[in-house]
Amino acid sequence: LAATRRHGTCGYVLDPSHNLDPELLEIQKVAKDFARQEMYPHMEKWDKEEHLPVDVIRKAGEIGFGAIYCSEKYGGSALTRLHSSVIFEQLAAGCASTAAYISIHNMCCWMIDQYGSEELKAKHLPQLTSCEELSSYCLTEPDSGSDAASLRTTAKKQGDYYIVNGSKAFISGAGTSKKYVVMVRHEGQPGAKGIFCLLVPVSNQIGKDNFGFNIAMAGLNGGRLNIASCSLGAAQQAVDLAIDHLKVRKQFGKTLSEFQWNQFRLAEFAAKVHTSRLIIRDAARHLDEKSPKSASLCALAKLHGTENCFEVVDGCLQMFGGYGYLKDYPIQQYLRDLRVHRILEGTNEMMRLIVSRDLLTNSTHWSA
Amino acid sequence: LAATRRHGTCGYVLDPSHNLDPELLEIQKVAKDFARQEMYPHMEKWDKEEHLPVDVIRKAGEIGFGAIYCSEKYGGSALTRLHSSVIFEQLAAGCASTAAYISIHNMCCWMIDQYGSEELKAKHLPQLTSCEELSSYCLTEPDSGSDAASLRTTAKKQGDYYIVNGSKAFISGAGTSKKYVVMVRHEGQPGAKGIFCLLVPVSNQIGKDNFGFNIAMAGLNGGRLNIASCSLGAAQQAVDLAIDHLKVRKQFGKTLSEFQWNQFRLAEFAAKVHTSRLIIRDAARHLDEKSPKSASLCALAKLHGTENCFEVVDGCLQMFGGYGYLKDYPIQQYLRDLRVHRILEGTNEMMRLIVSRDLLTNSTHWSA
Amino acid sequence: LAATRRHGTCGYVLDPSHNLDPELLEIQKVAKDFARQEMYPHMEKWDKEEHLPVDVIRKAGEIGFGAIYCSEKYGGSALTRLHSSVIFEQLAAGCASTAAYISIHNMCCWMIDQYGSEELKAKHLPQLTSCEELSSYCLTEPDSGSDAASLRTTAKKQGDYYIVNGSKAFISGAGTSKKYVVMVRHEGQPGAKGIFCLLVPVSNQIGKDNFGFNIAMAGLNGGRLNIASCSLGAAQQAVDLAIDHLKVRKQFGKTLSEFQWNQFRLAEFAAKVHTSRLIIRDAARHLDEKSPKSASLCALAKLHGTENCFEVVDGCLQMFGGYGYLKDYPIQQYLRDLRVHRILEGTNEMMRLIVSRDLLTNSTHWSA
Amino acid sequence: LAATRRHGTCGYVLDPSHNLDPELLEIQKVAKDFARQEMYPHMEKWDKEEHLPVDVIRKAGEIGFGAIYCSEKYGGSALTRLHSSVIFEQLAAGCASTAAYISIHNMCCWMIDQYGSEELKAKHLPQLTSCEELSSYCLTEPDSGSDAASLRTTAKKQGDYYIVNGSKAFISGAGTSKKYVVMVRHEGQPGAKGIFCLLVPVSNQIGKDNFGFNIAMAGLNGGRLNIASCSLGAAQQAVDLAIDHLKVRKQFGKTLSEFQWNQFRLAEFAAKVHTSRLIIRDAARHLDEKSPKSASLCALAKLHGTENCFEVVDGCLQMFGGYGYLKDYPIQQYLRDLRVHRILEGTNEMMRLIVSRDLLTNSTHWSA
Ligand SMILES: Cc1cc2nc3c(=O)[nH]c(=O)nc-3n(C[C@H](O)[C@H](O)[C@H](O)COP(=O)(O)OP(=O)(O)OC[C@H]3O[C@@H](n4cnc5c(N)ncnc54)[C@H](O)[C@@H]3O)c2cc1C
Ligand SMILES: Cc1cc2nc3c(=O)[nH]c(=O)nc-3n(C[C@H](O)[C@H](O)[C@H](O)COP(=O)(O)OP(=O)(O)OC[C@H]3O[C@@H](n4cnc5c(N)ncnc54)[C@H](O)[C@@H]3O)c2cc1C
Ligand SMILES: Cc1cc2nc3c(=O)[nH]c(=O)nc-3n(C[C@H](O)[C@H](O)[C@H](O)COP(=O)(O)OP(=O)(O)OC[C@H]3O[C@@H](n4cnc5c(N)ncnc54)[C@H](O)[C@@H]3O)c2cc1C
Ligand SMILES: Cc1cc2nc3c(=O)[nH]c(=O)nc-3n(C[C@H](O)[C@H](O)[C@H](O)COP(=O)(O)OP(=O)(O)OC[C@H]3O[C@@H](n4cnc5c(N)ncnc54)[C@H](O)[C@@H]3O)c2cc1C
Repeated sequence: LAATRRHGTCGYVLDPSHNLDPELLEIQKVAKDFARQEMYPHMEKWDKEEHLPVDVIRKAGEIGFGAIYCSEKYGGSALTRLHSSVIFEQLAAGCASTAAYISIHNMCCWMIDQYGSEELKAKHLPQLTSCEELSSYCLTEPDSGSDAASLRTTAKKQGDYYIVNGSKAFISGAGTSKKYVVMVRHEGQPGAKGIFCLLVPVSNQIGKDNFGFNIAMAGLNGGRLNIASCSLGAAQQAVDLAIDHLKVRKQFGKTLSEFQWNQFRLAEFAAKVHTSRLIIRDAARHLDEKSPKSASLCALAKLHGTENCFEVVDGCLQMFGGYGYLKDYPIQQYLRDLRVHRILEGTNEMMRLIVSRDLLTNSTHWSA
Repeated sequence: LAATRRHGTCGYVLDPSHNLDPELLEIQKVAKDFARQEMYPHMEKWDKEEHLPVDVIRKAGEIGFGAIYCSEKYGGSALTRLHSSVIFEQLAAGCASTAAYISIHNMCCWMIDQYGSEELKAKHLPQLTSCEELSSYCLTEPDSGSDAASLRTTAKKQGDYYIVNGSKAFISGAGTSKKYVVMVRHEGQPGAKGIFCLLVPVSNQIGKDNFGFNIAMAGLNGGRLNIASCSLGAAQQAVDLAIDHLKVRKQFGKTLSEFQWNQFRLAEFAAKVHTSRLIIRDAARHLDEKSPKSASLCALAKLHGTENCFEVVDGCLQMFGGYGYLKDYPIQQYLRDLRVHRILEGTNEMMRLIVSRDLLTNSTHWSA
Repeated sequence: LAATRRHGTCGYVLDPSHNLDPELLEIQKVAKDFARQEMYPHMEKWDKEEHLPVDVIRKAGEIGFGAIYCSEKYGGSALTRLHSSVIFEQLAAGCASTAAYISIHNMCCWMIDQYGSEELKAKHLPQLTSCEELSSYCLTEPDSGSDAASLRTTAKKQGDYYIVNGSKAFISGAGTSKKYVVMVRHEGQPGAKGIFCLLVPVSNQIGKDNFGFNIAMAGLNGGRLNIASCSLGAAQQAVDLAIDHLKVRKQFGKTLSEFQWNQFRLAEFAAKVHTSRLIIRDAARHLDEKSPKSASLCALAKLHGTENCFEVVDGCLQMFGGYGYLKDYPIQQYLRDLRVHRILEGTNEMMRLIVSRDLLTNSTHWSA
Repeated sequence: LAATRRHGTCGYVLDPSHNLDPELLEIQKVAKDFARQEMYPHMEKWDKEEHLPVDVIRKAGEIGFGAIYCSEKYGGSALTRLHSSVIFEQLAAGCASTAAYISIHNMCCWMIDQYGSEELKAKHLPQLTSCEELSSYCLTEPDSGSDAASLRTTAKKQGDYYIVNGSKAFISGAGTSKKYVVMVRHEGQPGAKGIFCLLVPVSNQIGKDNFGFNIAMAGLNGGRLNIASCSLGAAQQAVDLAIDHLKVRKQFGKTLSEFQWNQFRLAEFAAKVHTSRLIIRDAARHLDEKSPKSASLCALAKLHGTENCFEVVDGCLQMFGGYGYLKDYPIQQYLRDLRVHRILEGTNEMMRLIVSRDLLTNSTHWSA
């Protein structure tokens, strides 16, 4: 890292290039250019039309953003979780909700790549990693949200196929997706242990039997980092936009940036954005290295990142005054898009639950 | 880092060993043992008697904690800022206010080591680096606190000596210290430019003339990290103590740790402590590498760390109920000791000022 | 009040009937029934279609909600600001943004009623108080938001008419309204003193010349209370809906209401809603009595009420999990609608400015 | 109220005279003068020496502050809870911890006055209401804090006396007090139902048998309001002191009051102090009228008041910079004294519990 830093000329405390080596900087630039050219100009329209831009996602797939941390064999980019975080940060600035969906597709690809049989992968992964086909992650049900292990959808083998019985809810990409990674239950086998993972509609099991809940949770570790990275990217963008606005907009004969309240609020936003960046990237490194505490670190990063980045966007919106509320300005869209990051991939209450379990189990006794 | 992590067996998300390599772990252990044996058993008494334990500080000097990041030539430990942060984290758990004073002494030693002439260093540093003599940092005056550059104490050369005229305020260690690093002004030269740095009572100038304010500020970069590290160490300790208490104390037929509110609050504390650790250590690394943004990063780390760690200690105190308020329990002492970290070495409002200047000057235009 | 309370059977701490006498309770019931029957069933549709329901507003006018605190002579309801607050609380539960618009129309009517000539009132008020015609309040301009006194739209008398020159921005009801209460400037007369108030398109001055800024501000005192009351009504409704949801929704084999975190969060919401109610109603009473501190109290009530109620709705949304984000559920709409209350009728930063001026001018010296 | 307000000349939004009628204003003045003359000059010394100033409390008793809301028959002042709140607000500015103790003595007197037999009252109340003798409230035990109903101290009648067996903890005034109102249990009768209330050392039962827990809780309703009033009085004082300081202290060539951050923070403090005042006084009125929701309102007032007032004092301390931390300035003492108000008379977590029970039981269904 030293080299990069020493040669860097920019001293901006919120620079997204913080601590990145040249290779990561390059990927970051690719993602940024993509977000700037292919996403940002359209995000308002996509929002208005509640449109998932399949064509643009396909282009993202072409440059390797559909399966960032999948192995190369079937088309993955074989990059790290840190790369993934850096990429989603940029994509989210271009359109936070589209980026969030792409992150889910990445999660599905990884689950297949990681746990699927060679046969399954050979047959189905290439289309997915390239984003030719899109996929959905199907865990939640109407009666089973936070308590995902209580899901009731069953699947029963019948010849070559599975008869799936039950209903899923809140599935991102549903309708658009060609493949569904579905968590289902063996009838009569309650709890997390009774769950397995199925690729629908092709009816292939992914991973070991009765191991579906673990697979689902393993997927979510990365998912949470990516969602938090989406929050981060939008928050960074909100701060940069707010700073631009404050410097230009005048009231009371001064630019808004001359008012101390605004200055000091910006500094508070910087603390939130910067710590979000540090905690997310650190968790990504730990996940890359399969550290035993990566699940807790991912949960903590999701909790801290999505809460703080939401607050930042909310505060930046305020700095735009009435303009912040207008649909012509992207800031209100980031705010709406980020609101759900505190809920999906496990609510932030569930993140507190995960972290507190770690704390109560593993805490050390300093003075002992 | 990878090696360490992979071999680590502990998965505790708040483990202070987070990301440390074996060498840092070793230093950490030394500091921890010292804090546990020489400080923690006495912190209540020192507080009661408002006592600065000179003898214990001298022992700390013997193991190299008096001049952690000074060069070895005159007795410094030649370690990094990251080492320093790790050390102060541990010392603060032993006694936060004593640790804070030691950090100021370190700052003085470094200023002399960094800017003093060889002659000056040869003559005065060895006693200081070993803590045989203690030192104070003298910037603040009754009428000049946040606006330190407005200081009015003058010093005028008269033969071999300087006639110093004016008064300083809030000087940690005053009375106990043998050496004072004093920021003074050339009469008739207003502003930051008129300030130079003097070693009192020996009347030797430290560093270039009219360069005193820069020296004072350079010292504070490290000072802020160390103070924030003191907050961090106390907060970590508060959380670990609170967890112990929650697991043992029963009310309503359950241990307090079974109540969800307490669990979820712990998770929030974890986010605050962990991000404090990350932001402080990251800033330390940048300071070690003389990154152009280290001043901003140090200010941001001080702001985030001292605010959040105070909140954590306050929240942990609450978990002790009435016991948290008793002088028999260390938690209320940590709270009182940490309160002032939000004020000294530049108030957190001044940190906001420094950071906001960076933001308004250096912010990048993503979408441009 | 005593009588009411003693006879009240309900002990609900958040009961909107808190401290209301029988007459106010009756009006409250009328407003509630109206909101429940005429607004709530349609609020989702109006939002989707970005529709201002003129017909429903007219019905509100028929029962006296178009000019609540105007004198009866030209059709006002001659009620107090406290009535007004109680009414808007209820209407906002039916649809917060429609209620907010109605509050602006009320403000316009009051400004005419209070400051207009008898001739003007006789000719134009009856249609407005009955909501046959709707009105808009026109202060903000593209370059003049928080600094409203810097407005640049000029009006120059030419025979019976005024030539109005300039542009207004963010005008609620623009397009739909038949009458516009417009703050304009005499050319060449800068500052607040150069402003007068014009009824457009009829080209009649409202109130004394060069007194337009005072009229605009006088209108906003009540406007701020009403907007804050809208936030309050939506927050109350959000809490009641969340409680219903928590009691019914099960996860982990328990209703969500059994989880302590949710319980304790509810209590925090209660503190926010209840203090919002108290501060708003208290300010309303002071405004009714023309107390010298009513402007500050209104500003403080707007600041506290709109900030806290927004946080409450945000927190309640979280309790709905994914459902809170769905457009089928009203909660996300309340959140979006309340976001702008922190901005309009003077941003909450301007409220801080107003209050701090009072504090710095009028603070008393207890120990003197 | 109208009359008072109209004649008032002061428009200060934080005026403690807010909404008070002439009679209450008079009592307020008496309390203020007492606090200013008899307490404020000594609070630093009492703190240093950890001294409970029995002589000054006796003087407070002489002017009727020992039994504010007890009947006149045996020396009470026969005032309302609102009076009591107004009085403790003032006393706390003079010394928050002494005021808090006086509030506990008031609670004991009231419990005897309300539930004791005529005989008991005739014999023991006069010395207490006059503060000739002081009293303590004894509920908490080492193993029974928040879960007070689990207390284990037993009392068994033996002839004219009771043999009391067990230990109490955290008893304010213990040592100094002559009378102890002690909650004890009939051996073998578990739970709240097995508790009765005893006046010790005179061994007289207070109130009905097996009714002791209800008596204890009834006492705490008023106790919580008074403690919250103590927080309020200290917070008000902190704000007034901070304003004085900001107006006088100069840095960067300006008074601190000219910096917008400080101004806006003051406004936020005002919202906290003002809503605390409103919620406490409103709950007091409800308690005076025995409204069915008074227990919830008192709990909510304690929660909101003690949390917010603590934050205010903390924020005001910050405005004093280093001076805020010095023992020469009262602000740090207020902060320490207020910290425990969030814990005693039921922790603020227990307040959340009480309020949430009300919410989940009594919430109304607006749209039903
Ligand atoms: C836009 C969107 C996209 C989504 N995409 C997907 C997707 O692609 N695939 C998929 O499988 N799911 C998806 N989800 C579902 C999402 O993961 C769930 O909504 C989420 O996990 C919460 O579940 P729930 O909505 O059932 O809420 P619930 O579980 O009913 O929770 C409601 C509230 O209660 C709280 N709560 C629950 N249990 C407890 C407890 N024990 N203690 C304290 N509080 C508790 C929750 O934190 C929450 O605040 C999506 C949701 C949304 C809104
Ligand atoms: C226990 C303790 C130990 C200390 N040790 C040392 C030491 O060893 N050596 C030393 O030199 N100093 C020391 N100090 C002094 C400390 O650094 C100063 O107290 C601090 O810098 C603040 O200065 P001040 O107290 O004069 O507060 P002021 O500068 O008067 O500030 C008062 C308040 O106003 C705010 N403020 C000031 N300017 C502005 C502005 N422009 N905009 C907005 N807000 C503003 C501040 O943030 C603060 O909240 C110590 C202080 C304490 C309490
Ligand atoms: C939905 C909607 C409806 C509206 N309806 C009406 C209407 O009917 N009639 C009407 O006249 N107006 C209306 N407005 C306008 C509204 O009142 C203004 O948007 C508001 O007053 C803020 O002005 P601005 O948007 O120009 O923001 P700006 O004044 O540019 O403010 C931008 C940011 O800077 C802050 N700021 C400004 N000055 C200072 C300062 N001195 N110190 C610190 N911070 C400062 C502000 O608080 C804000 O955060 C409406 C606005 C909206 C969004
Ligand atoms: C200075 C001082 C003066 C006092 N004066 C008196 C007095 O005069 N008379 C008297 O009788 N008592 C007195 N007390 C005692 C005081 O009322 C208790 O300390 C208080 O009720 C808390 O009890 P505890 O200390 O046992 O804490 P615990 O009950 O052990 O609580 C510890 C923590 O756990 C939390 N907790 C407990 N139960 C739950 C739960 N179910 N869910 C979630 N969180 C929970 C608490 O909120 C707290 O944060 C005093 C205390 C102090 C510090």
